[in-house]
This record gives sequence, structure tokens and C-alpha cells, in this order.
Amino acid sequence: MKPTIPQGTRDFNADVVRKRSYIFNTIRNVFELYGFQPLETPAMENIDTLMGKYGEEGDKLIFKILNNGLDNAAKVEKAKAGFENVLQGKTSKDITERALRYDLTIPFARYVAMNHHQLPMPFKRYQMQPVWRADRPQKGRYREFYQCDADVVGSYSLLNELDLINIYISVFQQLKIDIELRINNRKILAALADTCGGADKMIDITIAIDKLDKIGIDKVKEELKSRGLNEEQISRIESFLNINGTNEEKLQQLKTLFAENEIGIKGIEELTYLITHSQQPDVKKALVLDLTLARGLNYYTGTIFEVKAQNVQIGSIGGGGRYDDLTGLFGVPNVPGVGISFGVDRIYDVMSELHLFPADVAAGTKVLFFNLGDTEVQKAMELAQQLRAHGIACEVYHENTKFDKQFKYAEKKTIPYVAILGSKELEQGVVNIKNLSSGDQTQVPFGELVHFSFN
Amino acid sequence: MKPTIPQGTRDFNADVVRKRSYIFNTIRNVFELYGFQPLETPAMENIDTLMGKYGEEGDKLIFKILNNGLDNAAKVEKAKAGFENVLQGKTSKDITERALRYDLTIPFARYVAMNHHQLPMPFKRYQMQPVWRADRPQKGRYREFYQCDADVVGSYSLLNELDLINIYISVFQQLKIDIELRINNRKILAALADTCGGADKMIDITIAIDKLDKIGIDKVKEELKSRGLNEEQISRIESFLNINGTNEEKLQQLKTLFAENEIGIKGIEELTYLITHSQQPDVKKALVLDLTLARGLNYYTGTIFEVKAQNVQIGSIGGGGRYDDLTGLFGVPNVPGVGISFGVDRIYDVMSELHLFPADVAAGTKVLFFNLGDTEVQKAMELAQQLRAHGIACEVYHENTKFDKQFKYAEKKTIPYVAILGSKELEQGVVNIKNLSSGDQTQVPFGELVHFSFN
Repeated sequence: MKPTIPQGTRDFNADVVRKRSYIFNTIRNVFELYGFQPLETPAMENIDTLMGKYGEEGDKLIFKILNNGLDNAAKVEKAKAGFENVLQGKTSKDITERALRYDLTIPFARYVAMNHHQLPMPFKRYQMQPVWRADRPQKGRYREFYQCDADVVGSYSLLNELDLINIYISVFQQLKIDIELRINNRKILAALADTCGGADKMIDITIAIDKLDKIGIDKVKEELKSRGLNEEQISRIESFLNINGTNEEKLQQLKTLFAENEIGIKGIEELTYLITHSQQPDVKKALVLDLTLARGLNYYTGTIFEVKAQNVQIGSIGGGGRYDDLTGLFGVPNVPGVGISFGVDRIYDVMSELHLFPADVAAGTKVLFFNLGDTEVQKAMELAQQLRAHGIACEVYHENTKFDKQFKYAEKKTIPYVAILGSKELEQGVVNIKNLSSGDQTQVPFGELVHFSFN
Repeated sequence: MKPTIPQGTRDFNADVVRKRSYIFNTIRNVFELYGFQPLETPAMENIDTLMGKYGEEGDKLIFKILNNGLDNAAKVEKAKAGFENVLQGKTSKDITERALRYDLTIPFARYVAMNHHQLPMPFKRYQMQPVWRADRPQKGRYREFYQCDADVVGSYSLLNELDLINIYISVFQQLKIDIELRINNRKILAALADTCGGADKMIDITIAIDKLDKIGIDKVKEELKSRGLNEEQISRIESFLNINGTNEEKLQQLKTLFAENEIGIKGIEELTYLITHSQQPDVKKALVLDLTLARGLNYYTGTIFEVKAQNVQIGSIGGGGRYDDLTGLFGVPNVPGVGISFGVDRIYDVMSELHLFPADVAAGTKVLFFNLGDTEVQKAMELAQQLRAHGIACEVYHENTKFDKQFKYAEKKTIPYVAILGSKELEQGVVNIKNLSSGDQTQVPFGELVHFSFN
């Protein structure tokens, strides 16, 4: 039998694991510097926790786990009835009681709802774990992928948004990815809807303008028309979409447009606060007020974020926003929050394409000791232990075989140094260190090996 | 709806994540020092990859994933037929094509079988990922838990065993856990079987003597009798179990016992090599030749290991051994190997019970800046950024509220320092740093804050 792995899943080899770890560690360190704390939740959740939270389409994409023990004679009738439900597109706890995590937000909400009495509030958590979706696999879309989220819940303060802005800037600076951090506020979009046909048009309008980048203004206008907006409303939306200039100039134009709309004024206030408090050069340079930014998820109610990598063709590599009610669905009302996420797979692709990974990020073994016989290898093992005690990763080749084969092993593992210790060297108390990229060879006495500079 | 999590699964809060990370990082660093490379495989495998690999009981404990789209009209009849199979305890790909990883060994074998042409041989990999088992949950036994394995495949050399011994010693030394590293060799047990009724008694004998610790010699003898061994054979096994003394003395007695048994002589040779090459004081002290050690898994063929923590009542915290054939089941024969694993949950329990975690292992935010008003907070945000640039984790309290509430937040998050910056301090260009455990308060000029020693 020739084995395969499930469609849409991946094995990560050492090189990839190390590069991914570099991204995760960079993000983790920044989260920690801002007082965010790690959380890990189980891969599986009770099926009730997940179903109904992601819309009808989402429900279908959740991986459900088959109950064990269905062949138990006492349960067969129930199982049969349950399976009839499954065949009708419903779920049945007689068939499946558990499902795999579909995102990190709902498990986080479930955790907060279960523990909110003990948690310090505001509660700042980050979480980096895989999620699973039964999406049709395609380029860049997987059935198992990591999400990487930070949220603050239990606070309405805009200081949180400032922290999250700084986190984005700091992470991408460290990863050396040039970004545009797009920002908008759902209250502005609500005000626009308010002045263009009422709040019930909010979703129609945001869906249409979210497509501006992809389909252009004319198609957006067509779509708005087909969604029942009249000429005057469409023209007002067009003038909104035409707002331009610096962030400050845009704010000025917004103030005119929504001079008398209460929710609009509130949204402008919030944006103004964030923009005026983001004056450090690195932040100012990246932060762009993008009034067409809408973000798909409808639970956002205030600030929304999206991160675009510059100099590369790729979708957004991060996003997030403020929501009013994280845990209401789990019986705990009034928990507002704001969060961001990092698209680690895309960040990986950007860094690969632009060659941004540090040269030594995937480094493994530094030194391979050749195996030139039983007596020699004993000394090699001893020296290897000394190097390891100094933090230098090394290996002793497993068998006494041809030089050629040992060299090939070093090459295949891209080990930069080999240490040659034959009977002559053993007698003289030295080891020959060969730098495989330069070809340089240096004779080093045993006692000085730990001070040799393996760069 | 009051949410819960599935039986046998756990949320890990910040304190636990950090302590677990400390264990994982310690082990990972040591693996890397010995040239082992990370591998990550998907949570789900094709069902054929897993089924039939863990015995009949194991098959039942594998979590299977329900196929999506069973309500597709075109597939309903097949699904019904498939479900009939499930009700009879069989699997059906019309119902489930995928299952959750049950251990790390089979996915590793699958990976090696798929990639053996490209891999450097010997291939040394480590893997630290969760696995899932539908076991009945009980104290210390979970349905989701991490395994942490290192294996070398493609080599018969005992140098690998020496490396693995050193890895065990080094990891537990760093974790400050006092251990006994028990070692034995399956060839010795095979020789014993050979001289006590033939190879077909091997399993009976190893199962019985594996219980020696728990049930005592008399019960073991009873069990051997009930398994069909005669007086003479039982008496020979008893004299084997009575072998005692230092490792060297035990080897001597073994040599007498198996003087003429070929496989026994080979096993003694291997053990002798490992013991004579483990003379560094730390290794020598921990390494114990335990002739009753059998290890459950029947695929071991040479060296076997088990790690027992001293000064604490708990099962083994690690184990492993040598096997002849990792990938034969996947169509790639002749891949021998040797591996070890760490029982991270139990290691965590040992370290908690013996208070072995370093005091600062769960440290998060170092400094909380109090929020004393809009103007003050701007300066606080700026100073916090300076501290973060120096690697000091800090937070600015999210709202201007009573001192008491801000202190409580610091306490709840066990933040050791608060920074107080009111209008007076702002005027004077200083900040008051209060050490919450000692009560000491120090006035620090803005420009010197990054040099303050937050210990």
C-alpha cells in the first residue's frame, strides 16, 4: 500500500517547521510584550458549541467526529434514527457529539463564558493553534491551517486599539515585511447606510463597497442598484467612496458628510483618536484610513483593521476589529472586545517570495564528526558532548564508512562543518575542522575545540 | 446555554501553557543539540493509514471523522449501506475517510515511507504534537494529549542508543528531575523464551515478568504456570529474575545463563557496549540494567528503555526502544530504527509535585502603568513602548479609574511592578515605580526608566 495524506493537509519538514516557528516566535514575543497571555483549547469542541455560529455554509464545513461505540447493540436503533437526520443535512448527537475547531474565536468565547468570574478583566489572550475546515482544497487554501489571534475582552477603551496597531507594526517590522495597515470604523459604514436607505441596507452597502478593489466603481454602482438603492443614495455612496487625501484630510471630509449623524460622529471621533495618537513615524507611515474597508464578518461594530503586504501580490495577511458581544451566545452578555489575527500561511508565502527569512533560520546541526573507527569515535562522542554543553548542535556519524558517504550526509543536511578525527589526530590530540562552504581546514587541539568559532 | 468542553479534554490557561512550554522547549533544545530535526504531520490521516495498526482495541479508540456532504442525494444509498457496516463495528469510507492521529509513530512511518528517497539517512526526527484517543477518561488519562518523540531510522548502530541515553540524561538534568533510566534488551528476553519452551512463549513470558513490580514473584510464577510453562522452565525464569548486583555483575550472570544461546549472546553484547560506553558519572548513576523490563509494544527487537522519576509515586515518564521495521506496513521494507518518547503530562505532574518549575517560568507582564488621565496616559504609552523595545513586557491600564481597581488588576495578573504617573510626576518628568511584593517605591526620571532593574 502506497500511503498518502488527506487532501488539503500538509506535512511540514524541518525547514518549514523552523521557518514557521520563526514567524510564530516573533509574533508571540510581541504579544507577550503587550501583556497578552497564551491560551490553548482542545482540538475538539462539543458540537453544540460550534454549530450555528458560522452560518449555514459554515455548519457544512465543520468536521464532525463520529461517535465511538456505534456498534453497541443497545444503541443501534437510536443511531439509525440519528443517521436518517444526518442524511437530511441535520446533525444528531447519536452520531456525532464532537467536532473539530473551525476557528479560534468561538472556542475563546466558550472559554471566557466558562471562566469569566476568575479571569482578570480586561482579559488579554493570544492563541496560536490549528483549525480545520472541510473547504474544497485549492492553492493556498488548506483543510488544516493555523490561526494566530490576539484579543482583549471586557474593555471599550481605544487604548486597546492603539496597542493592537502597535503590535501589528512591531511584528511586521521585525519580520521585515513592508505593510499598509488599513483602518476603518463600522460606525462610519453604519452612518452611510443610515443616510442611504436606513440601517437595513447596511449589509448590502458594505458587501458592495467591499468589492470596490476587485470590480471597480461602475460595477459597485450596478450592484447597489440591483440591491434596490436609488440614484440619490448611490450618488451619496459614490461621493463617500471618492473621499481622498491624507488620513487627516479624509477625516475632515467625513466630518462634513456626517455632520449631523450621531453614529457617524462617534465613528469619526474614534478614528480621529486612533490617528492622532499614531504619530510615531513607523506607525504614521503604515496607517491608512481606508473608507472602503468593510471586512466580511458582520459582528464587528467599531474599529476594523486589515493588513496588506507591499511589493507582493497577495490577499490580506492580517485583520480584525471591535465587536460588542463575544459571549452572548453562551449566556454571558456585555463582553465587548477587540482582536486581530495574523495569516501565518500567507506571511510565510510573502517571506519566501521576498527572501525575508534570516539565513540561519533553518539551521540545524553545526558539526558532523566523521566516524573513523571504534576508538576514534569514542573521543568524537566525548568532544561532541563538550560542544553540546556549549550550545553547539552536533552529530557523530553512525558508522565507520567511506568518507564520501559521510560527506554526502553532511551535504544533505546542510551541516556547515565536519570534524575529522582519525588515528593520527587522536595520537596528536587534535581534530581537523573543515568548513564545507569555504573548504578551509583548521587543526584544533581537543582542549580548544569548544572555543573554536563555528559561524 | 452553559457551555462545557468534551470529556477528557482540557483548556490550558497561561500559567499551564507557560509551564508546559518550558518542558517542551527544554526537550526541543536537547533534541536539536543532537541533530534531530522537527517534523509536523496533519492531525488527520487517511483512515487506512491508521486502522489495523494498533490492534483491535486500538481501532476502536481511534476518533473517526464523519465525511462531509452525506446529505448529497446522489450518495445517500451508499451512505446507508456504509452506515450498516459501521453498526456492525466495521469502517466504511462512505461514512468516514479520515481519522485523528492516535500516536506519532504511524504518521512518522507514513511520512518516511512517502519520502524515504529524499531523506538524509539515517533520518533523525523529533515530533511534539497532540494525539487523540477515545479512551474512558480518568485521572491522568485524557482523550487529547501531547506525545513527544525522537527517532533515528535507517541505522543499526548502537551509537544511536548512546545518543538517546544522553538525551534522556540531559533533559531530566535540566528539568532537575532525578531519574532512573532502566534499560534492557529484547534479545535477552527472546533468549529466555528460547530456553524456556521456545519462541512462541516469548509473549507469555514477557507479559508475565512485566508484572513483577506490581504482583510479585509468586503471582508471576502462578501466571507462568497457567500459561502452560512447566516447573523447570518456571524455575529457570525465576533464576533469571533473581539476577542482581551492579550492571556489570548482572551482565556477568547473564553471560553464564546464556553462554550458548546465540541471540542471548548478541543481546548481552549490545547491553555490554551501551553500559561500558556510559561511564560519565551522571549517566552511570542513572542507568540501571533492569532484566524485568519488557515494555508492552511487541515490535521492539533490541534495546528497550524506560524512565522512572525518583522521589515520587508515578508511572514511567518516558520510554522507547529499537525496532526492525518501521515502514514495512507501508510498502518500504528494511527501515530499522530506535526511538524514545517523553511523557509530558506526567513530567508536568512530577515537576508540580516536587516544585521544580523555576520561579519565573510563568512570568508575564512585568510592569503595569496606571491610568491617571488622558494626558498622563499618553506619556505612559510612550514609556511603555520604550520598555518593550528593551524586552520588558508591560501594559497601560485601559481606563482612568480608582487606584484600588488598578492595583487589583496587577495582583490578579501577578504583575510585580506598577508605574504611577500622575499630573505631578508628569510635570517633574518622573515616574514612581512600586515593587508590589516588597512595597518599595522608587522615583525614576523618564530618561532612566529603561535602565531601571525590574527583577
